[in-house]
Parts: sequence; C-alpha cells; structure tokens
Amino acid sequence: MRARVVVLPRPDILDPQGRAVGHALASLGFGGVQGVRVGRVIDVDLDDRLDRALAAAQVDAMARELLANPVIEDFAVEWPAG
Amino acid sequence: MRARVVVLPRPDILDPQGRAVGHALASLGFGGVQGVRVGRVIDVDLDDRLDRALAAAQVDAMARELLANPVIEDFAVEWPAG
Repeated sequence: MRARVVVLPRPDILDPQGRAVGHALASLGFGGVQGVRVGRVIDVDLDDRLDRALAAAQVDAMARELLANPVIEDFAVEWPAG
Repeated sequence: MRARVVVLPRPDILDPQGRAVGHALASLGFGGVQGVRVGRVIDVDLDDRLDRALAAAQVDAMARELLANPVIEDFAVEWPAG
C-alpha cells in the first residue's frame, strides 16, 4: 500500500520559495495568481501485509520524526489507492 | 480557488532523495518500507472569478512551463476544495 505525506510550510511561516514561484508565474504572464506555497510530497510504499491501522500510526511517526519539521511545517497523510 | 500541483520523478528515473529517505527510515527502525519517492507540491491560489475550465488550462500550462520538468518528472493537478 502507498501512503502520501504532504508537507507544507505552516500558514504563519514565510515561504520564500512560494513567493519566488509566484513572481516567476507573474513574469511568465499568468494572471489571477493570489498566492503560492511550495512544499514536499513523500510517497512511501509499505508492505501490504502490514495492518492498515498500524501502517497509519507508523507513517504518522515517520512524518513527525523525519519527513516534516513540526516547528515550521504542517503535514497530512493521504492514502491515494483508497 | 486552490489548485495543487504534485510533481514526482518519473518512475524510470532514479530518485536519490527518495533512496536517502528510505535508508534514513530504515535506520530509524521503521520496517516494511518497500520504496520512497520524494517530490514537490505547489499550492496555487487563484482568483475565484476565473472560469474553472480556464483555470484548469492555466494551471496545466504553469506546470508544463515552470513547475515541473517534463523530461524527468510527472505532474498531476488536484483541486482539494472540490
């Protein structure tokens, strides 16, 4: 099974990369862009024999310990294949 | 309205960052991890007055021209708020 961890800068944290992308989009002529935030996505393939609840707890721990920096980032875990 | 562009290395492309994260997870004691891919997520806030079909075409063009490198990356556009 595959878990997707989406990591984004917290809303109250400046996101210079997002600002740079926003400016680049504007200079390419894309109008109507009101804001851009840039983050990371980490797809983790897990052994299908793992219990789903255990896998969810494990991915949550991975995100807290390694994949995201909780001081400046929020994360969400998705299960794209259902 | 918000569009989310998810950019990931193409399946046939080596992903050293994903490999590094996979090794780090293993050394932290997380078992059952069969593979990791690391990519980017770009959330783009667009003027709500834009026509939805036009906005979709615009975000697709943004991804092709700036947000993703189509030689080595795939992208997908999501509309998280529906």
